[in-house]
Amino acid sequence: MSDRYYVVPRDFHDNLVTKAYLDRGFTPEESVSGARMASSASWHGIRTHNALKALHLDEFLGSGAGGCQPGASIEVVPTGFEAAQVWNAHRKMGQAVAYEAMDTCKRLADRFGLGMVSVDDAFHYLWGGGYVMEAAKEGYIAYTNCTSAMAEVVPFMGRNPTLGTNPHSWGLPTTDAIGFPIVIDWATSVVAMGRVQQLARENLPLPPNAAIDSEGNPTTDAAKAVALLPFGGHKGYGLSLLNELMAALIGGSLPAIRGRPHEEGEKNSTCFFFQVIHPDALSAGAFARGRGQQDNVKAVIENILGPGNEKCLLPGQIEAAGAARSEKSNGLLFTKAEIEEFNGIAAQCSAPPWNLKDFPPAH
Amino acid sequence: MSDRYYVVPRDFHDNLVTKAYLDRGFTPEESVSGARMASSASWHGIRTHNALKALHLDEFLGSGAGGCQPGASIEVVPTGFEAAQVWNAHRKMGQAVAYEAMDTCKRLADRFGLGMVSVDDAFHYLWGGGYVMEAAKEGYIAYTNCTSAMAEVVPFMGRNPTLGTNPHSWGLPTTDAIGFPIVIDWATSVVAMGRVQQLARENLPLPPNAAIDSEGNPTTDAAKAVALLPFGGHKGYGLSLLNELMAALIGGSLPAIRGRPHEEGEKNSTCFFFQVIHPDALSAGAFARGRGQQDNVKAVIENILGPGNEKCLLPGQIEAAGAARSEKSNGLLFTKAEIEEFNGIAAQCSAPPWNLKDFPPAH
Repeated sequence: MSDRYYVVPRDFHDNLVTKAYLDRGFTPEESVSGARMASSASWHGIRTHNALKALHLDEFLGSGAGGCQPGASIEVVPTGFEAAQVWNAHRKMGQAVAYEAMDTCKRLADRFGLGMVSVDDAFHYLWGGGYVMEAAKEGYIAYTNCTSAMAEVVPFMGRNPTLGTNPHSWGLPTTDAIGFPIVIDWATSVVAMGRVQQLARENLPLPPNAAIDSEGNPTTDAAKAVALLPFGGHKGYGLSLLNELMAALIGGSLPAIRGRPHEEGEKNSTCFFFQVIHPDALSAGAFARGRGQQDNVKAVIENILGPGNEKCLLPGQIEAAGAARSEKSNGLLFTKAEIEEFNGIAAQCSAPPWNLKDFPPAH
Repeated sequence: MSDRYYVVPRDFHDNLVTKAYLDRGFTPEESVSGARMASSASWHGIRTHNALKALHLDEFLGSGAGGCQPGASIEVVPTGFEAAQVWNAHRKMGQAVAYEAMDTCKRLADRFGLGMVSVDDAFHYLWGGGYVMEAAKEGYIAYTNCTSAMAEVVPFMGRNPTLGTNPHSWGLPTTDAIGFPIVIDWATSVVAMGRVQQLARENLPLPPNAAIDSEGNPTTDAAKAVALLPFGGHKGYGLSLLNELMAALIGGSLPAIRGRPHEEGEKNSTCFFFQVIHPDALSAGAFARGRGQQDNVKAVIENILGPGNEKCLLPGQIEAAGAARSEKSNGLLFTKAEIEEFNGIAAQCSAPPWNLKDFPPAH
């Protein structure tokens, strides 16, 4: 890590974030959910999806802009299907909805082997990987996808951004096998727009085929990039489309106008999809050499990372290392600039100020 | 199409393929399933997964090599979960298993909103896209993945091929909206090994980052390629791992030794995963402007393919065009070389010979 980090006690962080949400009119339960997700992201070293990002999003697209409705109640839409629930979130805070949806999916999976919750009229849940990671730590196979708040990605062979960065997140129960859950979690664009802006500021090039310029041609000049490209050409495009199509079946809005001014009568919100599978509902019980299920998972992973592949990382390994660092430091790690921004959050909601000298440097 | 095609009546094709399977000891039900899948692939213009490929695979890895067991019975493993089934296929023909698994998933989805079937000890189902496409045409959301018969793909940042080309296939019910089901269906490698061999024969280059040479370095020289790379770097690697991990939970074999000689006691077969969602189990019913579900899907797709994106294809569109061509020609389209190979199949199972002059050229 090139940046210098300071250790903020987790309670201290969570209390400020909860207070910031309460101050914006969210219920205690919502506020605690918002703090829990931000805290989990920072604990795992996810610097792009911390409390600062969440509160910024909430201010400019969420409760500060009508995109999110503090205190909204989730409406359970009757479908007549026992293992599937459909919710209308009425733009309730995404983090609170996502935690509750995953809990519901787990309950359904306990009973039916698998369960799903589809959510219409939702607002940003911050970090999909966090929800599936928690479920995976409890032993489940978990999945979520969502549509993004704004279209920034150009369909394969197109010129106009009409797709969100539409992420997918899978969590696998591998903790007993390798010490942490494998979490496959990424956007379907090569890079995020925030990364393009960062590279433009630093005058650094984009990777090839990550963005197009205003003429619709691929560019590696971050300053000229106006829209993103899906990863892996038509394959990433297909994965991005998948989120839009599932959302369209749920009740989703038209992606190209989402988050932008548009004619009356169209929706403006995103959709979530959650699914959990119980591990016992997958096992045929016929593992080689009499292994148990987790032993078999361990043997398969060791086989994949065998000779020649020692340098390979597993998805979720960086997050697990982040958590180990937080654990060792006994708190969340933030830079000076981040702590100053937290101080601004504190001022906004009349909480005691954050001061760099209150936090020990991380080793 | 640069090749010249000849029209083979579908029944004529299906009868020969059924006979070829019967001749190898498969049951009538299995043989009809094998012919049905091959026929569907050729009907949709999938030339890489036709009957010739299926029968070749069966000869060298399947019933001709002990990898597939004609007449095997599917064992339903009790799990206690109502919406999930686990099967041990005992190496029964993959196509017969896959059709039955999708039918079971649809029945479970009709009742619970979604359903899944996990299959241990399986043998190659040929073309995953075909199964999800059929379910999608019936109005369902369908998904399948499987582990490949042999490891040919190097994990991201690795040097040794320990992953299969592990494909994913999603089918979406979009026929009422756009005239055909969207089918997202691809391997997690940039290209298939068959494509590498074809390019090597023709002395043509590989795309960048599709394969490595014997030193473990990326190469575009098809003749020097010894292993494949996942598409999209760590993202495609994650998707390939997902199949191995789900298989590992089901009962899967160690990927690096799969399909190769190895020590006693380890398994050698692949796993399948199938899932179907009922469209009514997703709908929140709150579509903008009073649209119905399919109208909303249509509006979302039209929005994505709006101005600037007219040249974009939808996944499944090429297959739909292939089916339209077959429909118009009133039969399956094969090249001279393919028809000669079918004649070899006919000779093998003592069926009447295929002769190019029996088949009219396609227009």
